[in-house]
Amino acid sequence: MLTALEKAEILVEALPYIKKFSGKTIVIKYGGHAMINSRLKQAVMTDLVLMKYVGINPVVVHGGGPAITGMLQKLGIESRFVNGLRVTDASTMEVVEMVLGKLNKEIVALLNRLGGRGVGLSGKDANLIIAAKKLGKDRQDMGFVGQVAQVNPQLIETVVKEGYIPVIAPVGSGPAGESYNINADTVAGAVATALQADKLIILTDVEGILADRSDQTSLLSTIKVEEIPALIERGIIQGGMIPKVECCVNAIKGGVTTTHILDGRVPHAILLEVFTDKGIGTMVVGDK
Amino acid sequence: MLTALEKAEILVEALPYIKKFSGKTIVIKYGGHAMINSRLKQAVMTDLVLMKYVGINPVVVHGGGPAITGMLQKLGIESRFVNGLRVTDASTMEVVEMVLGKLNKEIVALLNRLGGRGVGLSGKDANLIIAAKKLGKDRQDMGFVGQVAQVNPQLIETVVKEGYIPVIAPVGSGPAGESYNINADTVAGAVATALQADKLIILTDVEGILADRSDQTSLLSTIKVEEIPALIERGIIQGGMIPKVECCVNAIKGGVTTTHILDGRVPHAILLEVFTDKGIGTMVVGDK
Amino acid sequence: MLTALEKAEILVEALPYIKKFSGKTIVIKYGGHAMINSRLKQAVMTDLVLMKYVGINPVVVHGGGPAITGMLQKLGIESRFVNGLRVTDASTMEVVEMVLGKLNKEIVALLNRLGGRGVGLSGKDANLIIAAKKLGKDRQDMGFVGQVAQVNPQLIETVVKEGYIPVIAPVGSGPAGESYNINADTVAGAVATALQADKLIILTDVEGILADRSDQTSLLSTIKVEEIPALIERGIIQGGMIPKVECCVNAIKGGVTTTHILDGRVPHAILLEVFTDKGIGTMVVGDK
Amino acid sequence: MLTALEKAEILVEALPYIKKFSGKTIVIKYGGHAMINSRLKQAVMTDLVLMKYVGINPVVVHGGGPAITGMLQKLGIESRFVNGLRVTDASTMEVVEMVLGKLNKEIVALLNRLGGRGVGLSGKDANLIIAAKKLGKDRQDMGFVGQVAQVNPQLIETVVKEGYIPVIAPVGSGPAGESYNINADTVAGAVATALQADKLIILTDVEGILADRSDQTSLLSTIKVEEIPALIERGIIQGGMIPKVECCVNAIKGGVTTTHILDGRVPHAILLEVFTDKGIGTMVVGDK
Amino acid sequence: MLTALEKAEILVEALPYIKKFSGKTIVIKYGGHAMINSRLKQAVMTDLVLMKYVGINPVVVHGGGPAITGMLQKLGIESRFVNGLRVTDASTMEVVEMVLGKLNKEIVALLNRLGGRGVGLSGKDANLIIAAKKLGKDRQDMGFVGQVAQVNPQLIETVVKEGYIPVIAPVGSGPAGESYNINADTVAGAVATALQADKLIILTDVEGILADRSDQTSLLSTIKVEEIPALIERGIIQGGMIPKVECCVNAIKGGVTTTHILDGRVPHAILLEVFTDKGIGTMVVGDK
Amino acid sequence: MLTALEKAEILVEALPYIKKFSGKTIVIKYGGHAMINSRLKQAVMTDLVLMKYVGINPVVVHGGGPAITGMLQKLGIESRFVNGLRVTDASTMEVVEMVLGKLNKEIVALLNRLGGRGVGLSGKDANLIIAAKKLGKDRQDMGFVGQVAQVNPQLIETVVKEGYIPVIAPVGSGPAGESYNINADTVAGAVATALQADKLIILTDVEGILADRSDQTSLLSTIKVEEIPALIERGIIQGGMIPKVECCVNAIKGGVTTTHILDGRVPHAILLEVFTDKGIGTMVVGDK
Repeated sequence: MLTALEKAEILVEALPYIKKFSGKTIVIKYGGHAMINSRLKQAVMTDLVLMKYVGINPVVVHGGGPAITGMLQKLGIESRFVNGLRVTDASTMEVVEMVLGKLNKEIVALLNRLGGRGVGLSGKDANLIIAAKKLGKDRQDMGFVGQVAQVNPQLIETVVKEGYIPVIAPVGSGPAGESYNINADTVAGAVATALQADKLIILTDVEGILADRSDQTSLLSTIKVEEIPALIERGIIQGGMIPKVECCVNAIKGGVTTTHILDGRVPHAILLEVFTDKGIGTMVVGDK
Repeated sequence: MLTALEKAEILVEALPYIKKFSGKTIVIKYGGHAMINSRLKQAVMTDLVLMKYVGINPVVVHGGGPAITGMLQKLGIESRFVNGLRVTDASTMEVVEMVLGKLNKEIVALLNRLGGRGVGLSGKDANLIIAAKKLGKDRQDMGFVGQVAQVNPQLIETVVKEGYIPVIAPVGSGPAGESYNINADTVAGAVATALQADKLIILTDVEGILADRSDQTSLLSTIKVEEIPALIERGIIQGGMIPKVECCVNAIKGGVTTTHILDGRVPHAILLEVFTDKGIGTMVVGDK
Repeated sequence: MLTALEKAEILVEALPYIKKFSGKTIVIKYGGHAMINSRLKQAVMTDLVLMKYVGINPVVVHGGGPAITGMLQKLGIESRFVNGLRVTDASTMEVVEMVLGKLNKEIVALLNRLGGRGVGLSGKDANLIIAAKKLGKDRQDMGFVGQVAQVNPQLIETVVKEGYIPVIAPVGSGPAGESYNINADTVAGAVATALQADKLIILTDVEGILADRSDQTSLLSTIKVEEIPALIERGIIQGGMIPKVECCVNAIKGGVTTTHILDGRVPHAILLEVFTDKGIGTMVVGDK
Repeated sequence: MLTALEKAEILVEALPYIKKFSGKTIVIKYGGHAMINSRLKQAVMTDLVLMKYVGINPVVVHGGGPAITGMLQKLGIESRFVNGLRVTDASTMEVVEMVLGKLNKEIVALLNRLGGRGVGLSGKDANLIIAAKKLGKDRQDMGFVGQVAQVNPQLIETVVKEGYIPVIAPVGSGPAGESYNINADTVAGAVATALQADKLIILTDVEGILADRSDQTSLLSTIKVEEIPALIERGIIQGGMIPKVECCVNAIKGGVTTTHILDGRVPHAILLEVFTDKGIGTMVVGDK
Repeated sequence: MLTALEKAEILVEALPYIKKFSGKTIVIKYGGHAMINSRLKQAVMTDLVLMKYVGINPVVVHGGGPAITGMLQKLGIESRFVNGLRVTDASTMEVVEMVLGKLNKEIVALLNRLGGRGVGLSGKDANLIIAAKKLGKDRQDMGFVGQVAQVNPQLIETVVKEGYIPVIAPVGSGPAGESYNINADTVAGAVATALQADKLIILTDVEGILADRSDQTSLLSTIKVEEIPALIERGIIQGGMIPKVECCVNAIKGGVTTTHILDGRVPHAILLEVFTDKGIGTMVVGDK
Repeated sequence: MLTALEKAEILVEALPYIKKFSGKTIVIKYGGHAMINSRLKQAVMTDLVLMKYVGINPVVVHGGGPAITGMLQKLGIESRFVNGLRVTDASTMEVVEMVLGKLNKEIVALLNRLGGRGVGLSGKDANLIIAAKKLGKDRQDMGFVGQVAQVNPQLIETVVKEGYIPVIAPVGSGPAGESYNINADTVAGAVATALQADKLIILTDVEGILADRSDQTSLLSTIKVEEIPALIERGIIQGGMIPKVECCVNAIKGGVTTTHILDGRVPHAILLEVFTDKGIGTMVVGDK
C-alpha cells in the first residue's frame, strides 16, 4: 500500500503534462473493446472527466460497433453486400442512427455520473458534419455511406467553451438533410483538423503498429508521415490499420500536432498517453 | 393572385406581433398529426425558423408517438400492463430512447434544411432534465416512467443565445444516469417554467377546448386558471385534455405569461397564434 | 378577403429574403414624393421598422426637397445663380440646415411611433461627414455647397449595434466646423461605402432607367457598371439620373454589393425590393 | 508672465478636483449670454471638452433664447398671448424646432473643433424625452408647450460610454410623435435625475441668489432645500429664479448630489465651479 | 516500483477532490520550516502550481521568520523590548520590509521556475492592506506593529483572474503611507475573509492540536468553533497556538468554509490536505 | 496672486496636450536627485498621478542609487572591482534586491497617498523581465550583472488596464530563477519598447545634452538618431550620457515615438515636458 505522501508525489509527477496540455483540445475516437467492457468504459470516461477538470478540452467521437449488427439482426434486416462491403440502405441507416443515438446518450450519462457535463451531438446538429455520398471502390452505390464534405465546428467550440464535453455520433447531414453513416475514425480526424486540435487519439483493439506482427514487443512507438508509404509497402501497416493511419496523416497535414493509435484494451490508455512519459501505442507525427 | 404590394401589406400587418415577441422565448410541444403529416411537419418547421429569424426564440420539445409502438412491434417486445397502463421496462425504454433520438435528429435536419440551425438534445445532455421515478395511480412500479425532478436550463440558454433552435427529446436522467421516459407535455411545461418563457404552445389533434364537444364552433378561446376546476367537474375538460391543461396551469403558476392548446392539424397553427390577432385554439391564462 | 392561413403563407414566402439579409446593412436614400405624400411616408417608415425587427440594419439618408425652397421664400431670401445653379450663401445654408433638422426629427418621430427607435443625426455629429468645398463646373465659388471628404462611421455603427435606426441629414462639417450642403444621394453612397453596406437603395420619382423613355414597360431591371458609359452616350441615362447612377457606381466600386434606383411613388417599394423576387426599379451591379 | 513651473503647479492644484469627479456625470443647462457672446461660447465649450478628456462626463441641455424670437419675426409669425404668456401654436413650434436644431448642431460643431466629439440630439431621438401637454396657470391651452413625462436615458448613456458629449435640444415627443417645447432648465433637471448625475449646473445671467439684490457681494453661496420656502416668502428668491430653484430641488430629491446656479457671464464658470475651491454662484444642496 | 497503470489510478483517485475545489480560492499562510528547508520549499511551491493548473486558485501570504533576526544582527540593530515583546522602531521596520521583500520575490521565482506565474505583492500595493497601529497588552507603544484595518482585495482578484498566483508580504499601509509589520497569520485570515475563500491553510511546525501534548497520536483532527474556549481553558490549545486558532475562528465567522492548521514539516502537506481523504493536521470548522 | 479665472485659463492651455496623449503609454525612468530630494519626489509622484487621472498611462522604472551603497557599507560588504567596475556577487545582489524592494514600495506608498493606485513589481514577477548574464568589457565575469533578454509585458498591461500605476524595480530573472541587477535606464527602454509606448522619459541630474558643456544655455533640445554618432565623436555626448542615449536610440528603433533625457532636478519636469510647449531637456527622435 502506498502512503499518502507517495500518492502526492505521483500527482506531482503529472504536473509537467498538465501544464503542457493546459487549454489544448484533444479529440478522441472512442470505439472497440473500450466501448463494450464496462470497466474499460468507466476508465475512459474517468480519463475524459479528469482531463476536463485539469483544464484540457476533450472532444469525443464514438463508433457504433456490434450494437448496430445486433439491432439489425433483431429487426430481421438483411444487408446487401457489394464486393464484400455492406450497403447501407434506408432501413439500415435508420437503425444505424437509432443505435448511435442511444450509445451517444449512454456515454453522456456516464460522463455526467462521474461529474463531467457531457453533451451528445450528431453531425446533423447545426450541420456540424456535412456529408457527401461515398462510392465503393469500383464506384458502386453503397447507399447512405458518406464521407466528410465539411465540418462546421462552431457548435463544438461553443459547448467546449461553456465547460461541456461534446460527444459526437458519426452521422453526417446530406444535401437534402438525409443521414449518412461515416466512418468514425474519419469523423474524428476531420473534427480534430477543424478544431486545430493538439492531439488526435484513436482507440483500437491492437497494441499499435508492430514491426513484427508476431512479436508484441516490436511496437513502433513513433512513425513519421514520410515513413508510412514504405511501411505499407512492406506490409507492416496493413488491413484495417491503413485507413486509421490515413486519418492520422490527414489530421497531421491539416494542422493537428500529434496523432496516436492506442490500445483501448489497456485501462486508462488515454491518461497514460497524455499524463506520462511512456507513451503507449504508436504516435504518428509530421516529418519535421 | 395577390399583387406584390398586397403581399407587402400582409408582411406589414405582422409587424405589431413581431415587435411584441421580439427577444421572447416560446416553448412548443410538438407532437400528434403535426409530426406525422409531411406537409404539416414542413409548416411547423417553417414557422419555427421564421420566428427565429425575426428575433423570437423558439424551443421545441417533441413526443414520440406511433413510431415507438411501431418499433416495439417490429422487435417483438410485448408490453406488460398495470391497471391498463403500459409498464416501461428496460428493453422498452431502450426502444423509446432510440426512436426519440432518431425523431429528434429528423426534426433538426428539417430545421437545418429550411435555413435554421437546430440542435437536438435529450434531457440527459448536461443533465438538462433530472428525472424521478413516477409510480402508477396505486403506487405500482411502472418501470422507467419518470417525472421531472429538476430542469438545468443553462445548456438551452447557451445554444439559444448562440442562435440555435434547441429540440429536446423527453428523456430524463435518473440518479444513476439511467433513462426515464417522461410525458412530453410535462417536459415542455417544466422547460417553459425553467426558461421563464413568454408562451407555452401545446400542439394537439383537437380544436382546443369545446364548450359543447359535439359543436366545433363552441371553442373556448380563453380560459382562466380559476375556471378550470369547474370545467373539469362539468366534464368540459376531460380525458387526455386534463393533464395538458394541468401542464398549462403549472407553467402559468411558474411564471409563463400565456399558454396555448392549439390544433396542430391546422397548417401554420403556431404562426397564426403568434402573428395574427385571431388566436386559434384555447389560451389558458392566469387570473389577473 | 384572405384567410389567416393565406396570410401566414405569405409571411412564409418572405423567409428566404429575411434569411438572406439577416444582419446586413442597407442604406436608403429617402427623398422625393415618398417624403411628401403622407401615405407613402408611412409606408416607407413601416418598411424600415419591419426590416429592423427582422434583423436587418437600415440606415437612412434623407433629402430636403421643396421644404427648403418654401422656407427660403417665406424668409424672402433670394438666391444668386451661377450658370443656372443656385449658390448656397451663408443665410441660405442656415435655412437649409434648419429645414433639414426639422425634417430629420419628423422622420425620427414617425419611426418611433411605429415602434422603431430612430436617432436623427447630421454629418456634423461626431464629425460623421467631413465636407470639402465643391466648386461649380467652371470652378466658380458656389458658397457652402460641399462634397464628401471623409466619412467617420463609428457613431452610426454604435447606434446600429444598440438597436437604433440612424437617420442622417446631408450636412457636412467643414474644416472650421462650418456647415456644407451636400447632395443626399452622394452622402448615401458614401455612407454605404463607409459601412460596407450590402445594399444602397435610392428612392426616386421615376420607374427606374427605361430603355425607351416613352415606354414605361421598357424598364432595365439590371445594368452592369461596364454598360453605363454606353447607356449615357446613347442618352438612355441622362439628366438628373446621371449623378444618381454615378453614386451607385462609386458605391459598387467601394464594396457595396448591389445598388438600386427605385420608384419611391410605389408604396412599400423598399419592402418589395428586399422581400420579394420581383425586384422593382433598376439594379446597378458590378461586372462580375 | 508665469513661468512654466508656475503653470505646472496650477495644473497640480486641479488634481484633487479631477480625482473627485473622475467618472462622474455632470449635466449642464447651457443658455443665456454664454450662448450668445462668442468668447463665452468658446470658453464653455473648452470647459466641456477639458472635462471629458480628464475623465468626467458632461451632458449638455441647451436653450434657444433670442434666436427663436428673431426667426419668428423674420417669418412674420405673430404670437397669441394668454395671461401674458406666449402660446406655442403649430407654426411657432415648427420654428422653435428648426432654430433649436440649428443651434444644437452649432454647439456640436464647436465641441468638435476643440477636439471633443459632440453628438446633437433632441428629445425625439429614441424617445429620449416623452412630453405631456402643459396647461397654463388657469388651465388654458398653451398649444405645444410641454412638460417632461418620462426620460429614457439609454441613448445618452450609450453615447457617453462611447466617448461622445451629448448635446440635447429641449424638444419632447408627444403621444402621437408631435413635438413639444419644454423649458430647458426643466429638461436639464429631468435628465440629471434620470442619469443620477453627480452635479446639475444651470448657467444663468445673474451672479446667483443674492441676500440683498442691490448688493452683488451678498451672494448666498450655499442654500439648503429646507431653507427655500422661507427665501421665496421673503422675496429673496423671486421671479424667473423660482422655477430654476425648483428644478434644482427636484433634481436633489431625485438623487442628484449637488446643483448649481452659476453666472454664465463669467468666462470658464463651469471650470471654476468644478475645478477650484471657490465655487461660484449659488449651490443648492439637500438638507443632510 | 509502480506501473504506469497504478500511477494513472492514483491520478484518478484525485478527481473527486479536483472537482470539489474547482474554481475555489485557498489562502495559504506559508512560514516556519517549510520556508527554510529547501526540499520542503520545493514541495510547497509544486503543490501551489499544481493546484493552479487543475483549476484551484491559491493565494499565498508568507512570514519572514529567522531571516529578519539575522539581518538585524548583521546591521547591529538592537531591539528594545516592552514586557518581553520586541518594539518595531523605524530602522527595524526598514529591515523587516527589506527582508520580506527579498523573500517575497524568492517565492515568486520558485513558482515561476516550476511553471507557475507568481506575482509578489505587499499590503502597500494598491493599498491592499490598510493597517492601524497595534498597541501592546498594556497599551504600550510597540512602534510599527500593526493590525489589519481593511483589506482591498481587487488587485488580488485581478491577478488571480488573469492566471497568476499572488504572493503577499504581511506589510500594511498606514494612514500616511508608512509601513506596519503585521502578523502573517492575521493577514492570511483577513485576506481569506476578504476573498471569501473556501479554505484557509496555516502551515506550522507542529502536528496540529494534540489532545495530549506528549502523545503525537492524540491529534484532534477536527475541532468546532464552539469547543475552542473549553480547549483553551483546559490548556490543550495554548501559547502560540492560541492566536493561530483565533485567526481560524475569525475567518470562519467571516465566511471562510474551513480552516486548517497543518504540519508544514510534512512534504506536500497542502496537497495531502486538499487532494486526499486523510486530512492532516487540525481542521477548525463552524458549529453547524 | 492669480485669480481663479487666470488659473482656469492655464488649465485650458493644457487641453491640447491632454488630448494628444490621451490613452497613450509613457515610460518614466525615475532616479537621481528626483528620488532623494523629498520635494522633488513629491512633485514627480504628483505628475504621475495627474497623468493617470487625465487618461495617460504612466509606467515607472526606478533605480536604487546611493541607498544601495549605504546598505552595503552598513553590512560591511566590500566590493570587488574589475577594470574599475563593481562586481555584483551573491551577497551584493541580495542587498541590491532588498534595497530596491524597499524603495519600490516607498514609491508605491507615495503614489497611493496622492490618490493614485500604485503596484510595485520587480522583473521577477510573472517573469516580467528575463535576464541574461552581462559580461564586462573584456568579457570578465561581473557576477549578477544582467542584461534584458526578454520582456513579458502582459502583467504590466493587466495592471495598467485596471487603473493601476506599475512601478518596476530593475531586477531580472535568470534561467534558474536567480536575480540579476540590470541598469534601470536599459530596463526602462526595454519596457517602453515592449509596451510600444508613446514616450520614454529618462530623468537625470543634468540639463540634457549641451552643445558646450560649460554653457548651460547651449542645450540641444532635439537630436536625431542619425546625428548621434557625430555627437559622440565630437565629445558632446560622452561618459554616462552615452548609454542613456543608446537606450533612447534602441527605444526609437523598437517603435517608441519620442524619447527624452530630462533634468530631474527641475520640479515637475515630467509635467512640463508632457503638458507644455516648451519641452525641457533633450528629445531624441527618429530621423524621419
